[in-house]
Amino acid sequence: MKSYKDSFYQHICNLQDEICNRLTILDGKETFLEDKWKRPGGGGGRTRIMTNGHVIEKGGVNISGVHGTLPPQMVEYLKVSNNQFFACGISIVLHPKNPFVPTVHANFRYFELYDGNKNVVDQWFAGGADMTPYYINEEDIKHFHLTWKEHCDTYDLDLYPTFKGACDEYFYNSHREEARGVGGIFFDYLRPTSTHSSDMWHQFTVDASHAFLTAYEPIAKRRQDLPYTEEQRDWQEIRRGRYVEFNLIHDKGTLFGLRTKGRIESILMSLPSHVQWKYDFHPEQGTEESKLLDVLKQPKNWIE
Amino acid sequence: MKSYKDSFYQHICNLQDEICNRLTILDGKETFLEDKWKRPGGGGGRTRIMTNGHVIEKGGVNISGVHGTLPPQMVEYLKVSNNQFFACGISIVLHPKNPFVPTVHANFRYFELYDGNKNVVDQWFAGGADMTPYYINEEDIKHFHLTWKEHCDTYDLDLYPTFKGACDEYFYNSHREEARGVGGIFFDYLRPTSTHSSDMWHQFTVDASHAFLTAYEPIAKRRQDLPYTEEQRDWQEIRRGRYVEFNLIHDKGTLFGLRTKGRIESILMSLPSHVQWKYDFHPEQGTEESKLLDVLKQPKNWIE
Repeated sequence: MKSYKDSFYQHICNLQDEICNRLTILDGKETFLEDKWKRPGGGGGRTRIMTNGHVIEKGGVNISGVHGTLPPQMVEYLKVSNNQFFACGISIVLHPKNPFVPTVHANFRYFELYDGNKNVVDQWFAGGADMTPYYINEEDIKHFHLTWKEHCDTYDLDLYPTFKGACDEYFYNSHREEARGVGGIFFDYLRPTSTHSSDMWHQFTVDASHAFLTAYEPIAKRRQDLPYTEEQRDWQEIRRGRYVEFNLIHDKGTLFGLRTKGRIESILMSLPSHVQWKYDFHPEQGTEESKLLDVLKQPKNWIE
Repeated sequence: MKSYKDSFYQHICNLQDEICNRLTILDGKETFLEDKWKRPGGGGGRTRIMTNGHVIEKGGVNISGVHGTLPPQMVEYLKVSNNQFFACGISIVLHPKNPFVPTVHANFRYFELYDGNKNVVDQWFAGGADMTPYYINEEDIKHFHLTWKEHCDTYDLDLYPTFKGACDEYFYNSHREEARGVGGIFFDYLRPTSTHSSDMWHQFTVDASHAFLTAYEPIAKRRQDLPYTEEQRDWQEIRRGRYVEFNLIHDKGTLFGLRTKGRIESILMSLPSHVQWKYDFHPEQGTEESKLLDVLKQPKNWIE
């Protein structure tokens, strides 16, 4: 079985540079600080964080490449039959300052497993991107989804509906009975099939990762300097609380990281800098705030 | 088997009144707002919340009494053989405004199970109290622990060391390798033994619940008006982030509530109103902030 280890790892290294450069230009004030770290069990990562920018209040663009022996718990979770693994990926979470700029998350990753002779015996690509707005701007949401649809459609017209549905299902705060945001795409275990080769999934995932800036940059650019009130900022911080709830209660990536003793600060870079929990807070009916909640109650098709 | 259902429920109703009255006097500015709620499966509760007080930035004093059929998951978790249950308790979480006043949590509860003829076949008391300071004042911590030790010692000299140890073990953020706070006492499954009857555990739990104000009120009183800086407030909000992490990742009560579809706003009243996550923040060595971290690294005996 052909390995994509080196090519995909090289890709995410380059992409981290590109995304950080572009986001630094977008922000116009702050730059990314870098922390390199090593994993005791094998491998490590390069965490890059921007704090208190003009546009980005807190943002991380992280890569990691880890290898070693999977704990039995993870062998069971992944439903695989080998425990020697390599995994690498890029993970992006941006919490903007302005409540009219949505929070965004994306990650793109590759996983492979080996037999006793270090031959690759299983491999898959995975990833996705989803957006969490504080105010509904249909233009933004349509642009975000259209970017992902156009990307998917290049490969197979069935992919966007499938991966969009998987995204709605995954990023769901079941204890609140509401979506985390307005979705995007989510895909996992992209193994070769009769119609889609691993070469194709490799290219699909690389292209998806390049589409991230196309999907998000224009939205940030057109909303970043809109004036906002203290009440709108409070609303953003309250909604960020739901983001924290999702990541700490439901997100499999976060829980996986915590369970496998990953680097805590790199995992929890996804948490926003300022957050509020107000007891039983409900926006008034008919307001822009309540419009967001209506949208989060029922996943919607954003592209006709 | 004698039921403590009515007497303990009456006790927590009265105690909720008493604690809310005393905390309202302590605060001097705000009062508690009350929400009564019903549980679809049986029973309900009375949630009381204070927000933006002079002393208490966000605080809840909640009681609930619920009954019905335990989901199979809970039967397994509790390791019991009957699924008809009644449970009631009082739960208190206070997040003060001033960083020199510790956050405090306490709960006291009673659980019973029935056979097919509605006879009580199993019963236990449970509860505890723990304190989470932002700055170490040994005088405060000693007073808190001494209150619980004196309470326990009235019944059995072995209880305080056992329940103090259980508290240190339970309120631990394993992913950070640090304690949530400076502990207190924690006890669960207090069933009758050859030396301790259910009558005794009933009285023990009632007395413990009365000790809450004794343990906490003097600390709040002597620290509530200390001047503090913006940096000290930031530190408090960062540490509150750890409180959120504990409650959403580790706390069994929270997870139980979410899994059994309890009232979300009553469960999550435990989350502080304003919270910060700063990437990889470490206080400077030798500061008062770093002194707290030293204490949280290793549980300590506060009473010689």
